[in-house]
Amino acid sequence: MTSLELQRLLDAVRDGTVDSADAAGRIAGAMRAAPFEDLGFARVDTHREVRQGFPEVILGLGKTPAQIAAIAARIIAHRRPLLVTRAQPEAFAAVREVAPAATYHAEARAITLACGEVERGSGTIVVACAGTSDLPVAEEAAITAEIMGNTIDRLYDVGVAGIHRILSEQSRIQRARVIIVVAGMEGALPSVVAGLVSVPVIAVPTSIGYGASFGGIAALLGMLNSCANGVAVVNIDNGFGAAAIASLINHQ
Amino acid sequence: MTSLELQRLLDAVRDGTVDSADAAGRIAGAMRAAPFEDLGFARVDTHREVRQGFPEVILGLGKTPAQIAAIAARIIAHRRPLLVTRAQPEAFAAVREVAPAATYHAEARAITLACGEVERGSGTIVVACAGTSDLPVAEEAAITAEIMGNTIDRLYDVGVAGIHRILSEQSRIQRARVIIVVAGMEGALPSVVAGLVSVPVIAVPTSIGYGASFGGIAALLGMLNSCANGVAVVNIDNGFGAAAIASLINHQ
Amino acid sequence: MTSLELQRLLDAVRDGTVDSADAAGRIAGAMRAAPFEDLGFARVDTHREVRQGFPEVILGLGKTPAQIAAIAARIIAHRRPLLVTRAQPEAFAAVREVAPAATYHAEARAITLACGEVERGSGTIVVACAGTSDLPVAEEAAITAEIMGNTIDRLYDVGVAGIHRILSEQSRIQRARVIIVVAGMEGALPSVVAGLVSVPVIAVPTSIGYGASFGGIAALLGMLNSCANGVAVVNIDNGFGAAAIASLINHQ
Amino acid sequence: MTSLELQRLLDAVRDGTVDSADAAGRIAGAMRAAPFEDLGFARVDTHREVRQGFPEVILGLGKTPAQIAAIAARIIAHRRPLLVTRAQPEAFAAVREVAPAATYHAEARAITLACGEVERGSGTIVVACAGTSDLPVAEEAAITAEIMGNTIDRLYDVGVAGIHRILSEQSRIQRARVIIVVAGMEGALPSVVAGLVSVPVIAVPTSIGYGASFGGIAALLGMLNSCANGVAVVNIDNGFGAAAIASLINHQ
Amino acid sequence: MTSLELQRLLDAVRDGTVDSADAAGRIAGAMRAAPFEDLGFARVDTHREVRQGFPEVILGLGKTPAQIAAIAARIIAHRRPLLVTRAQPEAFAAVREVAPAATYHAEARAITLACGEVERGSGTIVVACAGTSDLPVAEEAAITAEIMGNTIDRLYDVGVAGIHRILSEQSRIQRARVIIVVAGMEGALPSVVAGLVSVPVIAVPTSIGYGASFGGIAALLGMLNSCANGVAVVNIDNGFGAAAIASLINHQ
Amino acid sequence: MTSLELQRLLDAVRDGTVDSADAAGRIAGAMRAAPFEDLGFARVDTHREVRQGFPEVILGLGKTPAQIAAIAARIIAHRRPLLVTRAQPEAFAAVREVAPAATYHAEARAITLACGEVERGSGTIVVACAGTSDLPVAEEAAITAEIMGNTIDRLYDVGVAGIHRILSEQSRIQRARVIIVVAGMEGALPSVVAGLVSVPVIAVPTSIGYGASFGGIAALLGMLNSCANGVAVVNIDNGFGAAAIASLINHQ
Amino acid sequence: MTSLELQRLLDAVRDGTVDSADAAGRIAGAMRAAPFEDLGFARVDTHREVRQGFPEVILGLGKTPAQIAAIAARIIAHRRPLLVTRAQPEAFAAVREVAPAATYHAEARAITLACGEVERGSGTIVVACAGTSDLPVAEEAAITAEIMGNTIDRLYDVGVAGIHRILSEQSRIQRARVIIVVAGMEGALPSVVAGLVSVPVIAVPTSIGYGASFGGIAALLGMLNSCANGVAVVNIDNGFGAAAIASLINHQ
Amino acid sequence: MTSLELQRLLDAVRDGTVDSADAAGRIAGAMRAAPFEDLGFARVDTHREVRQGFPEVILGLGKTPAQIAAIAARIIAHRRPLLVTRAQPEAFAAVREVAPAATYHAEARAITLACGEVERGSGTIVVACAGTSDLPVAEEAAITAEIMGNTIDRLYDVGVAGIHRILSEQSRIQRARVIIVVAGMEGALPSVVAGLVSVPVIAVPTSIGYGASFGGIAALLGMLNSCANGVAVVNIDNGFGAAAIASLINHQ
Repeated sequence: MTSLELQRLLDAVRDGTVDSADAAGRIAGAMRAAPFEDLGFARVDTHREVRQGFPEVILGLGKTPAQIAAIAARIIAHRRPLLVTRAQPEAFAAVREVAPAATYHAEARAITLACGEVERGSGTIVVACAGTSDLPVAEEAAITAEIMGNTIDRLYDVGVAGIHRILSEQSRIQRARVIIVVAGMEGALPSVVAGLVSVPVIAVPTSIGYGASFGGIAALLGMLNSCANGVAVVNIDNGFGAAAIASLINHQ
Repeated sequence: MTSLELQRLLDAVRDGTVDSADAAGRIAGAMRAAPFEDLGFARVDTHREVRQGFPEVILGLGKTPAQIAAIAARIIAHRRPLLVTRAQPEAFAAVREVAPAATYHAEARAITLACGEVERGSGTIVVACAGTSDLPVAEEAAITAEIMGNTIDRLYDVGVAGIHRILSEQSRIQRARVIIVVAGMEGALPSVVAGLVSVPVIAVPTSIGYGASFGGIAALLGMLNSCANGVAVVNIDNGFGAAAIASLINHQ
Repeated sequence: MTSLELQRLLDAVRDGTVDSADAAGRIAGAMRAAPFEDLGFARVDTHREVRQGFPEVILGLGKTPAQIAAIAARIIAHRRPLLVTRAQPEAFAAVREVAPAATYHAEARAITLACGEVERGSGTIVVACAGTSDLPVAEEAAITAEIMGNTIDRLYDVGVAGIHRILSEQSRIQRARVIIVVAGMEGALPSVVAGLVSVPVIAVPTSIGYGASFGGIAALLGMLNSCANGVAVVNIDNGFGAAAIASLINHQ
Repeated sequence: MTSLELQRLLDAVRDGTVDSADAAGRIAGAMRAAPFEDLGFARVDTHREVRQGFPEVILGLGKTPAQIAAIAARIIAHRRPLLVTRAQPEAFAAVREVAPAATYHAEARAITLACGEVERGSGTIVVACAGTSDLPVAEEAAITAEIMGNTIDRLYDVGVAGIHRILSEQSRIQRARVIIVVAGMEGALPSVVAGLVSVPVIAVPTSIGYGASFGGIAALLGMLNSCANGVAVVNIDNGFGAAAIASLINHQ
Repeated sequence: MTSLELQRLLDAVRDGTVDSADAAGRIAGAMRAAPFEDLGFARVDTHREVRQGFPEVILGLGKTPAQIAAIAARIIAHRRPLLVTRAQPEAFAAVREVAPAATYHAEARAITLACGEVERGSGTIVVACAGTSDLPVAEEAAITAEIMGNTIDRLYDVGVAGIHRILSEQSRIQRARVIIVVAGMEGALPSVVAGLVSVPVIAVPTSIGYGASFGGIAALLGMLNSCANGVAVVNIDNGFGAAAIASLINHQ
Repeated sequence: MTSLELQRLLDAVRDGTVDSADAAGRIAGAMRAAPFEDLGFARVDTHREVRQGFPEVILGLGKTPAQIAAIAARIIAHRRPLLVTRAQPEAFAAVREVAPAATYHAEARAITLACGEVERGSGTIVVACAGTSDLPVAEEAAITAEIMGNTIDRLYDVGVAGIHRILSEQSRIQRARVIIVVAGMEGALPSVVAGLVSVPVIAVPTSIGYGASFGGIAALLGMLNSCANGVAVVNIDNGFGAAAIASLINHQ
Repeated sequence: MTSLELQRLLDAVRDGTVDSADAAGRIAGAMRAAPFEDLGFARVDTHREVRQGFPEVILGLGKTPAQIAAIAARIIAHRRPLLVTRAQPEAFAAVREVAPAATYHAEARAITLACGEVERGSGTIVVACAGTSDLPVAEEAAITAEIMGNTIDRLYDVGVAGIHRILSEQSRIQRARVIIVVAGMEGALPSVVAGLVSVPVIAVPTSIGYGASFGGIAALLGMLNSCANGVAVVNIDNGFGAAAIASLINHQ
Repeated sequence: MTSLELQRLLDAVRDGTVDSADAAGRIAGAMRAAPFEDLGFARVDTHREVRQGFPEVILGLGKTPAQIAAIAARIIAHRRPLLVTRAQPEAFAAVREVAPAATYHAEARAITLACGEVERGSGTIVVACAGTSDLPVAEEAAITAEIMGNTIDRLYDVGVAGIHRILSEQSRIQRARVIIVVAGMEGALPSVVAGLVSVPVIAVPTSIGYGASFGGIAALLGMLNSCANGVAVVNIDNGFGAAAIASLINHQ
């Protein structure tokens, strides 16, 4: 039982469309369910949506296709939306066995399957990225935020070396409720964007670059040291993590 | 003219308590004002509140007391709330010359002077810290968020080595609209907190520790790699930055 | 002659079932044997069990299958239990030529062959890991500790982001005599576990993660900076090393 | 009520020297006591001894003398042994106000005050160090282990560059139940010691050295990469942490 | 004999105002002079101006006041302009003994004494800095470039978080022949500036910042990874080095 | 319309060969063109040549062959010279579909297609490299500088371990207007070269080396710390970047 | 003409077996030869033996087989001994085309071809290594030192975790004139060896290890911080470099 | 008994000036002496000269003046030459109490007292340094090598930015038997020197520099990656260590 389902059930009780004894039984049943299922190699966190607003998401990295498919099968069995990040095509093949309707987003390296109703966020999340090479991370953020119930506005290839590119889109970024800014190399874009708006900016460094970019360290440090207010940072290439916190903000 | 003042002026026009021609004149006057004042060594960003929701804040680090006092004088002249972070007692002495009513928060190393009306945030910001040694950073966050118009709930010394300390305060953290979690050493507290709530967690690593804490790097990396959803990170010891983004979230 | 064999021989002398002159001859023979055998590219440490409680273990990393098989052959010739860690399937193929009864543990990447009697540890070693991706390292620790004569209790996927998963297993971890905690990403699990028990915790950081996990550095630093008492750390991904010291503790 | 006191109380019940109803009352009283006391800036973990075998220890680093003294006063009020590590002379002056009988160990930078009975460990803990400059850390380990109820054998200035120094003390290190090895510079001593014994070795890197010792990183890395079995590592300069885990091992 | 003096002498020969035999003698005399003077602890490079366009400059860091003064005395004896960088007030006191007319620039921490004629650069060098705290480095660059014969335009506190500050000065930066951009924290200013102009940008990272700025590493990496064309970087805080190469460019 | 074309048009107006009304129409047309074209995944910066002196260059790294070809097609459509750096053979195959006349420089990993007239630089750019393994980076610099309108003099394998190799080429390096010095390993060559000339030296560290070269960090640090004046540094392996700034200098 | 050939020629003149005019002609001819040959991509340093005691050696890393073969052909044409390090089998195939008699040492990854007479070193060089996995580096050192005219004594798998292995070989290491010690992981062997002898020890860290060995950094730092006297260090995996300096020492 | 004394005694026996029985008694006496004296906090290695060619040297860093003086007193009691490195003036004051004839070398921060006869090295050791700021390290090397019985030739301020300074001293460096090269910043001098000679070069990086010199890391990495043959490296600022190995080489 998700928090949205719980709220609707209570609304129904209040409105008299559901009997309170019936409702009490359904709530008690959900509470009796174990908060996780132990698969031996994994404990599927079946209460996560209640605690955190979205069901458990599968990080594909370091898991075998068989492990991913087994966890996915349990999530689907609970009728929750499915999201697998960092998924290789082999993982998708395995997941499709247990979830034929699932979709593979190649650029984002993500598998999704919408299931049940998800509460909609109240505003728009802008996903901006500095260069074409940052697209896989930006798309991971966009796909994640979409399945979590948010409206997305994509704004790609607006790096600071051609400052007119971002300045010409000021109206779009000023309409956002939260902005995810994805950038590699020197990672300067979040500072410029945050200086133009009064909404939170979630900065995602990417491992794009070479030499002294050190796999994203340069961008990460740049963002952590941003001289602009209103910027917080997630791990290198962590488009998912940026979307997760942006979605929480957008659902308040 | 702050955004709050602007909104109130327009409300007054709508309500007929202010003449529209008069209002037009006042808005035009604010727009004619230069967006920054050049002091030679500094350009005071007088339009920042319009763009970013709070006036320019002075980072005391690396500025002389005389420079700090000169910038403070300009902010006060514009009748904006004053906040100086990383302020040494010498800086406070200089600021008091130009702002006798200013307050020095010794633990937070901050100077404040409330001025004009600030829009109130809609919920509570919890500021939690792992250990007693993290207090200066936690207090910088709390003082900053307070002057920006937020209600604060402080929750100190709740590190993960005695997990019952944070678990026994679950009801307080679940009432928050945003949570700032301050921790040094291994920086594990944000992961545990974020796993218990469905609101954004802003994690602040501190330089508390020794040896392989490397001045806060261990805590920073721990937080960036958090396995929990809904965590974003600011710079080491950056209590101010955490409060700035938390306040933006709390004002939506 | 292992220390267990030596002790049994002396017990037999005391009990009169073995003649003291006969025993003296057998002990002298063992002492005359060279303490290592020189294979040119390797010196097999045949006295290690006497000094350290378990025969030499072969680290497969950086050795050719032929070198591994040659060292394994000497260990088997001395009738000692065989353990090869970080073994590729090619190494197993080569070892099987000289030790047809050997077993390959694919997840743990280890080859084992029990041989002779090994002294049993007095308690249980819990092997806990934070996520499914940590299994290879956790299994290396478990397999190693088992062949060294210990009883193992596996507790997998109990990371701190869902703190109820570890809290619900408190009784199992409190029954342990030593606990091995395996975790990647932010490496926070050992701090939480050590805060719940009064037995030594051996923490193993893993290279699981991406971006600012830096191949396990984040987890390593987190564990070294643990705010909990009773934690010591081994090298990144060193499941074997954790089991070796845990076994020594469990044999006291 | 410590675990030792609890065990004695139950023994007395079994032996008939204490009435069972009386005992039940005393146990219930201890359970009713809050598991921590909130001083605002600190939460004193009054149940830690039950969970972890030794009362809360105060890390002096980053706390003011007044904060240290206030926490010390609460520990003494509960009649528990007091240990403050990383204590400056000013902290000792403040503690002496609330605990006149406390002792300051200058080399170890520690404050102690024995109080109540502590369970004795079953064997000897050897504390070895490589050079004279490592003494402060070695002494912190020795003082900590002593107040935790262990017998200590100190073995100082036995670094590997004069290998005969450690070899000539083989009989002493082979009599130990646990060995703490403290070393800076290249940190090679734990590998040599662990190769000579079959007991756990807790390695403590120190920040002693210059240039490429990088404040103890060289020693830390050396110890983490030890080619010997049975070595686990604590943070740089963390004599306290080494003693804490060594004491747990020695109390099994 | 500087290159300017040499060129003027040859012009005079061409114009007949100096006898060619006389000129030959003077040139031969200069060539006979040793290319350096050995003071024991230092070799003053008296031919550097011929090879590199400006006489030897004294880096004050790591030299005693007496050493600085002794080297300064030799430079003055050769009638060359004097520049001491990273000079403490004590060094200035010592230099004033041998060069009473020397000037101390406190903000730039530099000592100068103009002497002889210096060839003028053909355009203007803009020195821009991101924040007030970057002034010492920016002033070192400006003072250095001035004594090397360049016209300077200072543009201070134009960091990217308030992008309108630099955009409003576009006409000044587009008039420059070379631009020195000084910035700490995330070091993003050079990328934005270089995207607006078609002249070389010399980027100087500063050690301004805290936490993950790591003494200027964040800014250094940001600048090395600049996505804009036409940026090259000098060492952290190396205002002098930026001015030296900028002056060479401006003298072509 | 490039700056060269603009200048020629204005010259023609001055000389009367083009009617001023006609010219005004052509300039207005160019200004009406959007400053970039949005391809969705990329915004081609069509005004870059006006702002920065050379059209947008495609960094092949991290882009798919299809993306590279699509951007290349737009640049060619604007009749601008094409340069793709870090181009794999697959990228060249895709580009050849849209630009059959393009050339692939295998050693430099670059694709070029000259198009339209490019303003010539006024002097020679020397490209020197320390060892044979540095050739790919040196060639990237040389090819880039050539297509940007510069005359190149290549000076390869002149590392400092055989100092006579560079000393014997002094006359060539002294004839240069700018010098690009490419070196891996210890990166000492720029210091030696800069000490011999009075022109700017652009230093390019390469990732050539092993062990403690750390992928070019050793060379990068060596160059940033150069004790010679007149050296500025670009990113590791960034031959393109060195050529871009060298070309700006050579065009003044 | 090598230094040995030169010395022999002068001896022959002294002894009257060669005419002085004839000798003068041969010496002059050698001096007339250019000190290097320019192949375009490489300058073969034909005078290196005169300056440095051994002809130019080819580092195979980063060079194509064709480049290696071309340089090898020139060295052979000058009748000098050939040594190619870091040579892949493909490089050997190419070299064999120009030097059919060349040998490939697979473990050492080196190609050699003895040619002409090389002066013999006066003592023995011991090459010791800590583990079997260090053999490739140890063999590179041994093969290099052999072709440079030295007698080698190999002592493999004598790491410090079984200290009796090195102690039992004391007589061999004490007979050496120089000792090369090769070790990965914690790199402690050089300290122990240097403490036992009074000859120079050249320490070679290897990249053997995993996790916190960081590709040899742990061993490198351990060796740089050696507490023993008489140790100097070369680059990670640089068996060649160790042999080169050891050979210079052994030829004095 | 030093090795020199031992050799002289045996020569005297051979020559008949000392009776063989008398000699046997003196040798037996020396062998009976313990190989070290235990002062509790230090074990003075009284046999080090026999094993390593020079008595134990006191590293002053991290020892109290009292500890230094106590160890010094024991060395003097054995009539061995005294050397204390990294000695503060306070340490000298304490040593002078037990050794009134000791000398303090302020620039080198060393205390010496010659005592007994030391075997002379066979050649000259050149100590070269790149800049004036490197003098303290260079002097530590020179003072150390002198008391160990070597003839020193100092060559200071010969850095590579003015390459003629070192080239003009070629004859001096070519006369050396070993060369110690001390350099900070980019650390390029050893490569240039080693390319000019055929004797071993011991490179000493110094912590001189700022910014990206990272306390000597830049110089250290430069030296480890030297492209010249015959270079080995000691720790940053380790003038003593360089002299120790150089002296061993010079005594062969």
